[in-house]
Order: sequence, then structure tokens, then C-alpha cells
Amino acid sequence: MRAARLNEFTHDMANGLSIEDVSRPAASASDDVVIEIDGAGWCQTDNHIIEGMWEPYVGKPLPMTLGHENAGTVQAVGDEVTLVSPGDQVICHPVQTCGTCRPCRQGETMYCENGAFNGLTVNGGFAEEMITNERAVIPLPDGVDPTEIAPHADAGITAYHAAKKAVDELNPGDAVVAIGIGGLGHIGLQCVDAMSAADIVAVDIKESARNLAEDLGADVTVDPTSEDVGEEVEALTDGTGAEQVLDFVGSDETTAIGPEICAAGGDHHVIGYGGHVHEPAQAFVDGEFAYRGTLVGRYAELQELVALVERGDVDLHTSRYDLEDVNRVAEMLEHREIDGRAVITP
Amino acid sequence: MRAARLNEFTHDMANGLSIEDVSRPAASASDDVVIEIDGAGWCQTDNHIIEGMWEPYVGKPLPMTLGHENAGTVQAVGDEVTLVSPGDQVICHPVQTCGTCRPCRQGETMYCENGAFNGLTVNGGFAEEMITNERAVIPLPDGVDPTEIAPHADAGITAYHAAKKAVDELNPGDAVVAIGIGGLGHIGLQCVDAMSAADIVAVDIKESARNLAEDLGADVTVDPTSEDVGEEVEALTDGTGAEQVLDFVGSDETTAIGPEICAAGGDHHVIGYGGHVHEPAQAFVDGEFAYRGTLVGRYAELQELVALVERGDVDLHTSRYDLEDVNRVAEMLEHREIDGRAVITP
Amino acid sequence: MRAARLNEFTHDMANGLSIEDVSRPAASASDDVVIEIDGAGWCQTDNHIIEGMWEPYVGKPLPMTLGHENAGTVQAVGDEVTLVSPGDQVICHPVQTCGTCRPCRQGETMYCENGAFNGLTVNGGFAEEMITNERAVIPLPDGVDPTEIAPHADAGITAYHAAKKAVDELNPGDAVVAIGIGGLGHIGLQCVDAMSAADIVAVDIKESARNLAEDLGADVTVDPTSEDVGEEVEALTDGTGAEQVLDFVGSDETTAIGPEICAAGGDHHVIGYGGHVHEPAQAFVDGEFAYRGTLVGRYAELQELVALVERGDVDLHTSRYDLEDVNRVAEMLEHREIDGRAVITP
Amino acid sequence: MRAARLNEFTHDMANGLSIEDVSRPAASASDDVVIEIDGAGWCQTDNHIIEGMWEPYVGKPLPMTLGHENAGTVQAVGDEVTLVSPGDQVICHPVQTCGTCRPCRQGETMYCENGAFNGLTVNGGFAEEMITNERAVIPLPDGVDPTEIAPHADAGITAYHAAKKAVDELNPGDAVVAIGIGGLGHIGLQCVDAMSAADIVAVDIKESARNLAEDLGADVTVDPTSEDVGEEVEALTDGTGAEQVLDFVGSDETTAIGPEICAAGGDHHVIGYGGHVHEPAQAFVDGEFAYRGTLVGRYAELQELVALVERGDVDLHTSRYDLEDVNRVAEMLEHREIDGRAVITP
Repeated sequence: MRAARLNEFTHDMANGLSIEDVSRPAASASDDVVIEIDGAGWCQTDNHIIEGMWEPYVGKPLPMTLGHENAGTVQAVGDEVTLVSPGDQVICHPVQTCGTCRPCRQGETMYCENGAFNGLTVNGGFAEEMITNERAVIPLPDGVDPTEIAPHADAGITAYHAAKKAVDELNPGDAVVAIGIGGLGHIGLQCVDAMSAADIVAVDIKESARNLAEDLGADVTVDPTSEDVGEEVEALTDGTGAEQVLDFVGSDETTAIGPEICAAGGDHHVIGYGGHVHEPAQAFVDGEFAYRGTLVGRYAELQELVALVERGDVDLHTSRYDLEDVNRVAEMLEHREIDGRAVITP
Repeated sequence: MRAARLNEFTHDMANGLSIEDVSRPAASASDDVVIEIDGAGWCQTDNHIIEGMWEPYVGKPLPMTLGHENAGTVQAVGDEVTLVSPGDQVICHPVQTCGTCRPCRQGETMYCENGAFNGLTVNGGFAEEMITNERAVIPLPDGVDPTEIAPHADAGITAYHAAKKAVDELNPGDAVVAIGIGGLGHIGLQCVDAMSAADIVAVDIKESARNLAEDLGADVTVDPTSEDVGEEVEALTDGTGAEQVLDFVGSDETTAIGPEICAAGGDHHVIGYGGHVHEPAQAFVDGEFAYRGTLVGRYAELQELVALVERGDVDLHTSRYDLEDVNRVAEMLEHREIDGRAVITP
Repeated sequence: MRAARLNEFTHDMANGLSIEDVSRPAASASDDVVIEIDGAGWCQTDNHIIEGMWEPYVGKPLPMTLGHENAGTVQAVGDEVTLVSPGDQVICHPVQTCGTCRPCRQGETMYCENGAFNGLTVNGGFAEEMITNERAVIPLPDGVDPTEIAPHADAGITAYHAAKKAVDELNPGDAVVAIGIGGLGHIGLQCVDAMSAADIVAVDIKESARNLAEDLGADVTVDPTSEDVGEEVEALTDGTGAEQVLDFVGSDETTAIGPEICAAGGDHHVIGYGGHVHEPAQAFVDGEFAYRGTLVGRYAELQELVALVERGDVDLHTSRYDLEDVNRVAEMLEHREIDGRAVITP
Repeated sequence: MRAARLNEFTHDMANGLSIEDVSRPAASASDDVVIEIDGAGWCQTDNHIIEGMWEPYVGKPLPMTLGHENAGTVQAVGDEVTLVSPGDQVICHPVQTCGTCRPCRQGETMYCENGAFNGLTVNGGFAEEMITNERAVIPLPDGVDPTEIAPHADAGITAYHAAKKAVDELNPGDAVVAIGIGGLGHIGLQCVDAMSAADIVAVDIKESARNLAEDLGADVTVDPTSEDVGEEVEALTDGTGAEQVLDFVGSDETTAIGPEICAAGGDHHVIGYGGHVHEPAQAFVDGEFAYRGTLVGRYAELQELVALVERGDVDLHTSRYDLEDVNRVAEMLEHREIDGRAVITP
């Protein structure tokens, strides 16, 4: 079968992956599940993986098929699988967990001590088929299209997980700032809107993104190239500041915004990455401020996100590309030319 | 009456404050409380205030009497005060809150929008008498000596507040790392020990501090000048890492430890300050890591700390000095020559 | 001025209160606030007070002016009040708190150890004017009509408080059952809808109430006189049960529903009262079930509810009556003839 | 092999179980684990099961081997088990969970939709060997004796789970009341003591139990046959009441205590069962009171409890009996003649 493979880390996005012919996966363990991929979302993290940015954290498992936002149709299952049967449509949580380590017991999918991460530590879904396990698949409700929902497997769940952490701290009338209304941000904004009665400030340098934010429920939009985010937040909150910040960008510039705009006790959630945080310790003490990282989300949270999609609370903006287009997609994302989310349809 | 006054910001600790004669405070508002100071703790923050480090955050209210860790005996009260009467012994929360702003309604003493901070924005307790308000005083139980307990008004409550946030995340058998077993750290360590069944790792470059930590309940002590903190934590936790880190120092070196030693989902509490945090955004994402600042603590938490003291769960190591010795104390602290906490007895 | 007074406990609602001429209140304490009443909601609890049902809990302070859901215009203030000035429009939290007891420090308005409750332990708002204190008033945003919002001071905040506790336990796709879509229930339903993405099941014996529930966001309505609540919930949740139940009625019949319909770990919130809970202890153990009482709500929560009203998220169904109509209103409520909430306009 | 079997529900404890010869279990599924039982605790619930009290909740799976508090040595494992190997010593969580249902994903062991409960829905550990699965076993640290720790598999984890829920609500200086210092209570008391700085009031009608409570950390003990629990709690708490009540008995008398002695917002945890809760709905509203059921505890909590045992924080009082003694043990427990916990050693 055809698969988009990474053979070497590179900054040349135009030639990052190569389409190769590889053998089809087969179910061997009792909980194996083989999926025919209907859609696999392309993520900023795919660019980061190609660049080698995750090598220090997870080692170097090359060559490998990328793709961690997968949905499709069950082809075959191991002999003890009961959750799904061939023909079922599923979305795949990116982590294949063991179910027996302590984090798995606590529901902390992402902290699994024996987990494999699709397209990062094992072969992913930029291919005709992919193998995963029973603990990683979620059956889709009737009427939910796998190709449409695929990006929720990572972009969606990451945005949802961060949004949920923020919502836990938000009361009606509080302000929350969402920075970067792209692939993740436009999902996170809708999640906050569906689960809280907070006032949402959307920050983005692109006019199309700000317009999208308004359509999706933002109360205020700010263009940081021409407006001062701090002043806008101060005006909206009578000087109190924003209780929560969702930073879907994670650059030097965006992380620097938090200490200025947060209310006392506020949190700046670091979701996107690429830049650095650089602040005096005193900036944390004054205002009891926190930077809190976000790492994808739990399996149970992906179930909740599927429920939001089924309810019509979260709308995903996608465009579709053939498997052969992966490198073009990588380049377009690099140049911020993709609105919403690109989905590969192998 | 005599008071130790700061007239100008300076780095010359030997001449930071001057002992001057000032008029005694008198109760005028209905909730005023005048305190005869029995003890006023000297805090690292006093050094920072003298250096002007807080000016960007709170403005420049000089000249001013310093001292924010106060306990003493009620001398006079405003005409609607019911909580205390002249002769009562009290400890003073450092913030005089309004009681009517939204943070006050939520119990968030430190976020009061109209609060005055003793010895930082209004005159403090390095003086024979000090004026505060009814919402800032806590009557002491019989048998608790004001001079002994005074440092709990800031050092104690700050350590307790951070410890409580950490304890909320700690299960039996989890590891917590306390960095810096000085004035704050030796209190925080005892609070964690009293309120959790976590394994405590105490890190300090001074042998006397490590010995004190062991006496107070640390399970393991580490000298970072000769041992690798990361390796020690890894060995203790079978590679999982520490769920929580309490950083009572807040230097460049100590804040850099967190991302290395924290378990997935762990927090590094920034309590001490002076240095900088400098990390890639990716370090937050990988491991879902957080830096969380700590700003003193709530009035209700000071009540809880007084209960811990009354129960015998927290022992404060103090040494006493005359009001005339303030500058000498400032110098000694600068040179790390004070174990436990210095208390001024005006 | 005229006031509706309770002189003796009685079950004769037609003659419960008498309209009398009493002296106007005057500000004497430094934090007093005198309010000209624009609207005062009539509550089921007023009927309960007239019947003497609260005497065992709060003693017998008769004679007394009833009315605990008050909003109006500030007439005069004590000499240290800063939050409001004469002419400001405000809604009154029913409890005048002290601000200095431990519950007040924790933000627990309802647990104040020295509080007075309007229309229950001190004179309330079924009168031209009422006296309260600075800690009990919330200035209204522009465009919010005091007469319209008055019932939120108790009905609203009680419903909101319970809804907020339920929402804390609700994930997207979870089911919540609201029993009784009357004065409280129709507010609580909207609060849940605004703050969560849960599926709402509304239960009421009146068709008009069920229709209102549908208009306000209920996903399913159930008539318990002709349908089995348990079966409906089981069908909706694939047998899992409802994570939360909001019981705005509190009769023998409604409290008995909880153990049957709750999912494992679920809660049955007892908001309305009048009946009894009678269950074997084993019913709590099996399914880890809880009955959780609700007592009005916090001052800070009333601020949040005002924000919901200002956002347009909560719509109150009210009808207006003259002060002379109080006993007629009491009778109508007894016979369930009032949809939404009756407001007295003295 | 020999096993103690229940063939028919009965109230005749002297003849509840019969010792029979049954075939040894063998590993067939990939995650099966066969345990040689070193110790199996006898629980009040075993008496309740014999009486048929659980039949309405779980159906009637007779005949069956009872015993849900098991620890022992691994004899054989299925072909995909990695957590343990033959020869390992383990304690067995009583529920064999599926690992794929939503509650399992959330860490809610007890709510597993496909779980089997040892000795209640499938054969338990009053036998030479028992079969369970990989997700139900916890390897024991060196030096922990399986026979000694066995009762923690249910008594211990139930007490710990309830204690942890209470501790989440307890601040230093708060009061917690433990009712019934028997098999569960004497563990729960130690857990509260290890994880909080609350003042513990122990209530028991037996002098030996009260003495044990004092040895284990109770601050106050009360004999409800000669002292008034309400008065004692009021005296200890200056009239505030106890923030939490842990009711290890669950009789009509003990459940009736909660509304009287709880502080505002307090919880009465129903752990033991047998009696009824009967209260007016108004008793929940006044004081915002709750009855909260407890159902055993999570797998991750059993890991935490094992950590407490390893730390020396929880000491279990056990006495050992042969398999042939099961009915005698049942009778002794019925007559309250067992202090601490009886362990069967097959």
C-alpha cells in the first residue's frame, strides 16, 4: 500500500516526505485494530516532526509513516476485541495506551508509560491503512463523517483539552483570550463558547481568522499588529484582566502577553509551541500567574469532543488533499496559507 | 514612637533603613485596629523592597515604615469593631482588604482591588505601633506567643499557601521536591508533611539546612553542588519524576530544574523570586508542565496555619533582634547567615 | 410607609400577611444602605415562612416584613459606604453578611455566622423601603431593570448555585435531569444550558411548563404522570443514567427518583423542599450516589448571574402585582397557578 | 481444590457457606492471572451477600465462592500479561475491569460497565486459587506480607476512598467525625490522620474500639451510649460543627447524626450500610448538607493505600482463620466479636 514516509529530518518542507510502497499491517495481538484511513489531518506538529524538533523528547524512530489525526473504517481486529468490528467507522486517539500503568488507571491517556504515538513513535495514518489498538479507537455516531472529523484526533482534542482546563476556571462574565484562530484555535474557541458563559477575545494577525472568530462566537477580536491587546483586555474587563489565556501559537511574542493581560490568579495555557517563555520569577509571584502546558488530551475527552460535534456545537473547517500532496500541504502551512485544517485522504 | 523607615531605594543593605521618631497611629475609621507590635519578622522581600524591586509593581510610596510580618497586642479599635478588643493578642495578615470587591467576596485576600499591604504600600510593623483593620487581624489562641508566630504572617502563609496548592495534587507515595530550606522552605516542608503522605525531597546547598530538613520530615535530602537532583528524583520515583516542586528560591538555576524532574502533569511552584524562567514553549507541552506563581496567601489560610501551629505541626525557627538591628539583619540575610527567621522586637 | 407584615404563623394563605404602616428605615451604621424597593419577588419560601416551617431553624422573629428577593434604588448610605451612592440601582443578596467570620473569608456568603436574612430574620422588601448593608448590594449594569431582575436575588441565585454545582460534574454529552420547571427550574435550566454542553431532560407534570422548558433549551421533556422518567433517561443515555439531577421540587416523589435514574457517581441536588428523603443506606453505596442540599447562593454567584442576564443567557418570566396583592399571590402559588415568577412592586 | 461456597441465601450465618472441592482455575484469556491465595479478608459485606442483600443490585449468580479481599502469589498468566509473572506477590482489586468502557477510561474502576466483582458476581478468594485479570492486580513492594495486607483489597480501599473524599474538604483545624472504629473505621481513621491536619472525633459504643481509636490518632473519642455526640462536636468546634462525617456503620441511628453535627456545607459519607436514611428535604437545604455514598475505591487508590502501608502510615489489625472457619467468622462478626479484621488463609 502507499504511505507518506519520513526518512530523514529536514527543514526543506517541499521534500519532507516521500510516497512509498509498504506492506499492509495485519492484526496479531489480541487487541489489535487495523483501520482503513478515510481521512488524516495534517498538523503543525507534522512540520515540527519533519524538522526533528521532537527528536530530543522521543528519540529517532525513522523511517516512519507520519499522520496522527486519523479516522476511518475498521478492517480487521485481534481475537479479543469487543469494542469494534470490521466495517465500524472510528476516530483514532493518537496514543495507543497499555491500560495497565498507573497513568492509564488514572485516565491520563497522554502520560501512558508504555504508549505508542501514531506518526511520532510508530507508523501513522498518511497511508492506506494503519494499525492501532482497541484502547485507541472511538466508534463514531451515525451521521458523523470520518474524513470530516479526522483532525479532531489531535488538533481537536488538544484544543478541547486546553479549553476544558480554562473553562474549569471561568465564571460567567469572566474574560478569556484566545491567541491564534487557526487549526487549533478555531476549535478551542467553539469549545469555550459551548461550555462556558465567558466573554471571548480572539487575537489574530489575519483578518480572515478574525472574521472566522466572530462567526464562531468571539465577543471581541483584536489585530495585534494595529491594536494593543493589553489595552483592549483592560477596557473589556474594567481593568481586571482576563482570567484565562489560550495561546494556540506559542511564539516569543504570544507567550509574553500573558503576564500583562491576566487577572490575578490567571493562567496562560501554552498550547502551540516554537518560541520561548522568558520572564522574571517575580512576574509569576506578582498576580499569582501561571504558564500551563497542554499535551493533546485524554481518550475520554475525545469522546466528549465527538459528542460536541454530534450536538453541532463544534464545526471544523477542512480542505481535502490527496496523499501525493503532503509536501505541498506542509509548505502551505509553513506559509500560513491554510485556513482551518487540511485533511489527507489516502 | 520609633520606627524603621525606608527613605530611598538602595542596594546598600548596611544603611537601608533609618530609625526615626514618628507620631503614633490613631483609630479613626470604624474598622481601624491599632496594634502594639510584639514581633515583626524580617523577610527576603524586605531586602527586595529596599532595592526597589517592587517599585514597578506597586509604585513608590516612600518614605515608609517597612515590616509586613506582624503580631502584637490590640491597643485601640474603631467604633464598629467586634472581632477584637484592646488587650487581645493577634497576628496580622499583611493585606488590609476592603471586603466589598469581587476578589474579597471570593475569599481571594491577595487580589483585593482596594487593599493596602503593610510595609509595602502603607506603614508596616518595624515600629512600636501599627494601624491595620478588622479584616486583617486574627486573634491568637491561648498559649501562642505573638513574637514567636509573627513571621507566619508572610513567610508562613506564603509557604503554607504554596504547600496547600501542591498537596491538592499529591497522592500517597507521590514525590514532592522542596528547593531551599530557609525561612519559607522549612515551614513549607512541615506543612506538606502535616497535610499529605507524599515523599519529600529537600534540596539545599547548606548542610545545616539539609539537616534541619531531615529533622522536620524530609525523606531524602540532596546537595545540588555535589549531587544531581534529576538523578536522585529519578531513583526515588522509579523514573516517574516528582509530581510537585516547591521552589522557595526562584533563581535561574532552581527554576531550570522543574522541566527535568517533574512527572507528567507536574507543577513547579515559583515562590521565591529574583531569577528568571527561560524555557522553550515545547518544554511546557512535552509533559504538560506548568510554572505556577505563589503570592502570599489568604486570610482563611492564615487561620489554618495558626491551627497547625496550635496543633504543634509547624515549628518556627526564629532569632530575635532589636529594632536598631534592622540593617544588620538585612545584611545577614543577604549573606545567607540567618537560619530560620529573624524577628524584630520593637 | 406601607409594608406587608407577618404577625403570626398560619396555613391560611388568604390572610397570611397584613398591609401596615411602619416607620421608614434610616442609615445608622457606617455600612448601612437604604433601598427604595422597585421589585420584590414572591417565593415558595415565603409561603413556607408564613406556615412556620423555618421557625425550628431560625427562631421566631415576628412580627416581620417578608420579602427576600429585592431590587431597587439606593436612597441613603452609611458614612463609609463606597460601593454605591444614592440613585444607584441595585439587586440585594438576601443575606447581610458580617465580612469578618471565617465563612465570609472563604466567600461562603450563606454560612455567615453573623448574617441577617431579609424577610426571614430581619425586615424584607415587601415594603416601600428596606435597609441592608454594603456587603449585600450589587450595582446593576445599565439597561437591566430592577423590577425584572428582582427574583434573581433568591430564586435566581438558588437555581444558579445548584446549576453551577451540577455543571462542575457535567461533560459534553452527559445527561442532566431538571425536575420542576417553575420559578426556580426555568432559571436553572437556562443556567445549565449556558454553562455546559450536557443533554437536558426536563420533567414537569404541567404541559405549559414542559413547553417552556423546550423553548429554553431542554433536549427532552417528560410528563411523569404518563411517562416513566427512568425509562426515558435510560433510553437517552444508553442505559448509563443521568450524571446529575436538579430537583427543584423536593417532594417525596421527586427525591425518590434519584437513585433510579442517576449514573454511577451521580448526584441528586435537593433544591426545593417540603417532602422527605427515605432511602436505604445501601442505595447510596450501590452506584456511589449522593443527595446534596442547596442553600441559596453566594454573593459572587449573584454577580455571575447578573452577568448571565446582561449577556442575554437567562430570561426571567415574571408577572407584576401590587403590594396589596401579596396574599392573593401566596394563594395562587399554593395552587400552582403562577408560571415563572410573581414580583411585588410596592 | 477447596473453596467456601454459597449455595443459597440465608440468615443462618452458622451454616452460610460450605467447604467444597472444586476444579482449579486455568488462564485462558490473554490477560488472565491465576492467584494462589495467601490471605482473603472476611468483610461485613460477605454477611450481607449471604443474606441476599445484594441480590436486587447484582442478580443471583449462585452457587459461588465468596471472598473479595484477596492477596497472594501469581501462579500463571495469560500470554499477553506483562505487569506480573508467576511468583510475584500481589493484592487483588476486587473488580476485574474491561479497560475499554468510558468509566475505565476515566479511572473509575468501580463504575466499569463490563466488570466482574470477585466473590459477588464471579468466584472469589475463599479458596486455594482464584482467577482474575491483569488490570486487577497490584504487585506488592518487598517486605509487604500478602496475608497481612489482604483486607485492604476491600475494607482498606473503601475506607481509604471515603477518607480521601473527606480529606479533599478538610482544612487544618477542621473537625471530622468517624463513626464506628471497626474493620473499616480503624483504617479510615489512620488514612485521615496521614493525609490531613484535621481534628478527629471517633465515635463507637465499644470501649476497646475507642481505645484503639485513641492509639491510632483520634483527638477525641465519644461513647454515644453515654455521651451526646452533638454536644461533644459543638464543644470541640465552638459551635461550628464537623466539616465531614465518615459513617462506617450506616444504621438508622448513625445516619441520623449527620444533619445535627455537620457544619454548613458539610458531608455525611455513607460507607457502612444496613439501615435507612430518613430526613426532611429541608434538612438538606438548611446547612447545605449532603449524604454521599461510597462504593469501594479505584485501582489507583489501592496503589496509594499500598504506599501508605509501605510508609508505615496505616496499620491493619488482623486475626487469621482457616478456610474451615468461615462460618464461625461470619457469626463472630454478626455479634461484633471481631476487633480489626479477620483473614482467611486457605
